[in-house]
Amino acid sequence: MADRAETQEAIKVQGEVVRKLKAEKASKDQIDVEVAKLLELKLRLGGDDVKHQFVLKTPKGTRDYNPKQMAIREKVFNTIVGCFKRHGAETIDTPVFELKETLTGKYGEDSKLIYDLKDQGGELLSLRYDLTVPFARYLAMNKISNIKRYHIAKVYRRDNPAMTRGRYREFYQCDFDIAGHYDPMIPDAECLRIVSEILGELDLGDFHIKVNDRRILDGMFAVCGVPDDKFRTICSTVDKLDKMCWEDVKNEMVKEKGLSEEAADMIGQYVSMHGGMDLAVRLLEDPKMSQSKQACAGLSDMKQLFSYLELFQVTDKVVFDLSLARGLDYYTGVIYEAVLGPAGATTPPPPPQVGAPKAEESLSVGSVAGGGRYDGLVGMFDPKGRAVPCVGVSIGVERIFSILEQKAEAEKVRTTEVQVLVASAQKNLLEERLRLVTELWNAGIKAESMFKKNPKLLSQLQHCEESGIPLVAILGEQELKNGMVKLRTVATREEVDVSRADLIEEIRKRTSTV
Amino acid sequence: MADRAETQEAIKVQGEVVRKLKAEKASKDQIDVEVAKLLELKLRLGGDDVKHQFVLKTPKGTRDYNPKQMAIREKVFNTIVGCFKRHGAETIDTPVFELKETLTGKYGEDSKLIYDLKDQGGELLSLRYDLTVPFARYLAMNKISNIKRYHIAKVYRRDNPAMTRGRYREFYQCDFDIAGHYDPMIPDAECLRIVSEILGELDLGDFHIKVNDRRILDGMFAVCGVPDDKFRTICSTVDKLDKMCWEDVKNEMVKEKGLSEEAADMIGQYVSMHGGMDLAVRLLEDPKMSQSKQACAGLSDMKQLFSYLELFQVTDKVVFDLSLARGLDYYTGVIYEAVLGPAGATTPPPPPQVGAPKAEESLSVGSVAGGGRYDGLVGMFDPKGRAVPCVGVSIGVERIFSILEQKAEAEKVRTTEVQVLVASAQKNLLEERLRLVTELWNAGIKAESMFKKNPKLLSQLQHCEESGIPLVAILGEQELKNGMVKLRTVATREEVDVSRADLIEEIRKRTSTV
Repeated sequence: MADRAETQEAIKVQGEVVRKLKAEKASKDQIDVEVAKLLELKLRLGGDDVKHQFVLKTPKGTRDYNPKQMAIREKVFNTIVGCFKRHGAETIDTPVFELKETLTGKYGEDSKLIYDLKDQGGELLSLRYDLTVPFARYLAMNKISNIKRYHIAKVYRRDNPAMTRGRYREFYQCDFDIAGHYDPMIPDAECLRIVSEILGELDLGDFHIKVNDRRILDGMFAVCGVPDDKFRTICSTVDKLDKMCWEDVKNEMVKEKGLSEEAADMIGQYVSMHGGMDLAVRLLEDPKMSQSKQACAGLSDMKQLFSYLELFQVTDKVVFDLSLARGLDYYTGVIYEAVLGPAGATTPPPPPQVGAPKAEESLSVGSVAGGGRYDGLVGMFDPKGRAVPCVGVSIGVERIFSILEQKAEAEKVRTTEVQVLVASAQKNLLEERLRLVTELWNAGIKAESMFKKNPKLLSQLQHCEESGIPLVAILGEQELKNGMVKLRTVATREEVDVSRADLIEEIRKRTSTV
Repeated sequence: MADRAETQEAIKVQGEVVRKLKAEKASKDQIDVEVAKLLELKLRLGGDDVKHQFVLKTPKGTRDYNPKQMAIREKVFNTIVGCFKRHGAETIDTPVFELKETLTGKYGEDSKLIYDLKDQGGELLSLRYDLTVPFARYLAMNKISNIKRYHIAKVYRRDNPAMTRGRYREFYQCDFDIAGHYDPMIPDAECLRIVSEILGELDLGDFHIKVNDRRILDGMFAVCGVPDDKFRTICSTVDKLDKMCWEDVKNEMVKEKGLSEEAADMIGQYVSMHGGMDLAVRLLEDPKMSQSKQACAGLSDMKQLFSYLELFQVTDKVVFDLSLARGLDYYTGVIYEAVLGPAGATTPPPPPQVGAPKAEESLSVGSVAGGGRYDGLVGMFDPKGRAVPCVGVSIGVERIFSILEQKAEAEKVRTTEVQVLVASAQKNLLEERLRLVTELWNAGIKAESMFKKNPKLLSQLQHCEESGIPLVAILGEQELKNGMVKLRTVATREEVDVSRADLIEEIRKRTSTV
């Protein structure tokens, strides 16, 4: 325990540090760190000098969801879960943190973005970074070799947030995965069908899904003369093609990564290709590509995939695109990524030799779903290394929330589902209102009444207008005497007298379409 | 960076530590700490010697939810959310972690149970401990003075888990709160009505809700001669009456906390009282109690509360119980707690003078909901100290999950909602199956087909039995030729031929009650 005087001295010194940084206009991050230390010191002292001084905010890169945002979120989740259930998925949940060692070695360079918990004695813990690694851990731990599951939960990355574009440090993932030994490409095709259903139902406008295969990429690298030990790093450069123009990508390959100019140009030829089953067929006959066993395996599967996609009626949404690489290490086969934008599927991207940057608008919202096959991950957890092949997709709901929130900015979005407000036209009718609202609750009607003894009728009606309540059941002396209720439709202001006995039926009838 | 040889040496030493602890049969916690250190060291070395060596588990005090548990969880949440919505609530969400300072000073002694995140640069963060403090922070931050909201999310406490009894370090809270300046006891009564509706609908058997008021407790302490500065500590001793017999509680008051024997006995008289509105009326006339202004304010409100509870038709479930204290510091008025158990409301607890422990069976599952009024919490966050009165209730869903999971152990619980499996009776019909399942998805039918090219009919039927799929649409050469499908009802094994054009209607008709 630090002595009180000592702490007070430390507060003085730390206060100076903060003032100095502010005077020097240091970065916000730097100042935040020092302010946090200062507050920590002040908290040690306790007492009223701390009260009301703290910053009223959520942690960097996080946000609250207000009721309107929650209403949008609920709608999006209902659509997504509806689709997952339509395809027969079960759901599981895992803890928000895992043993640190469970996450170690799964994310390559991105491991630095993992949130660790403080060592407070006991196990070393980290917040989950995605839902895929916990899923693999779950399968291995429970010796499950077959499952079709979805998991919707928040994950955590100490990234630099770009919140206006829908990127946060705490964000939702919506994952659907199929684990098990099956005949090739059937589950893979179903994942693409699911992405297509969801993006279609969410009504986000045009979209297309790029597909490729890790084996095709690796085969391509091999036949282009990329040395074995450079596959991964060249692959991650190719992955930047959605953000950088071909010239810059080529520069990085040649100048930074030491690839020969010739190899880079050859890669450039391939990564400009895109099409459908026809492209797979063509490449199977390509004199160079056909020399790689890996590439041929990937291309045959791609052909098979497109034949299933045709049966699933989604070929118009899917493009075989050799420039798609995806960053994560654990993919072993098919990979895909869905992108919003005007019919990107049919407009060819500018050929790499032109060196023009890709059209910005088609990338402004970036990818909204992605996934692929990862046949080796579960084996990393299994004590006997037993493999469980998996393929899955993750829906980028945060991007989707951002888009729909923007759309809804002007609109009125209801945040409650109340069907009827029980109101009173005169004073001293609180008890009668509570009696009636209880009757409605008993019948399963969504109803409320204001928490005031004598609210004005006008303020009761205003409440309905503001929160979109469609009906008002108005009680007055007269109505009570006659065993009636005045039922008012808020939108039309039309009022009818309904007998108390018929009220519930009448409300149900009038709100059945809501 | 530690040198590799140095790390290897450290691993050797740490290995010895672990072996020694195990030999000495040290506590699991102690061993866990040292094993974690050992693994951390091994991870620094990397390489294959670590692989397959880590412990395949979830962190202490946490659990995965398997599909069956999730199905139960979903049902419970649907019931609870349905009730919250019936009462007109909106919902919000907040981040899983808050600035450390946001939580500081809110939980008294329990603060030591807060999970802190590691200082990785930037802000100091802690995992949320409940949903009430984030709610208060949200109200102050957004200057909201009126809201009826629910929030369902996980919270974190580094407690000693008793997992078999449904206590975890990561667990759900389901909170409903009403914030705003309203006429007294109307929102408070609605909270009790909500608890009663939810516990009734969840079909957990008998339950009753104890209510009391912080002001009545404080007034009682005053008239019994408890010194002002001992209110809180004596209150927390009273709170133990649900776990300890009166004699032990009295002992703690007198011997540990230095209360006079006479004061303790007087408290003993009061805390044995319970009843309904009648008890509030009686105590308002009690020669001692009536001397405390605070007690009188609480008792008048209690009278008022019971009058509203009568209108809400829940008086049979609610008991005014002077022994209810509740731990949290922030309550300022009414407090309540729902307890499962056989008609506890009507059986008087053993009088304190007998000294018998309370019947164990009535406490075995403990409280399943609790809450109260906290009028000061938002003001602790507001820069101007502006108060927003709040009252709320938290449903103890983890206990409820435990009970329902136990009940469901023998039962078959469906974990998917698939209505129909598209099956084939002969080989080489994969394409036809995929074509049909696509038609069904297009029509919104929940359908699946096996991911094998040529599954046996028997294994397809078995899959339906196992996962409770009610219908099978069987395709064969004959059916395809005639434009028909054989529709089989799994439960009865009855089969009918349906024309392809009528299939969707037929499936809808047969599963409309599902």
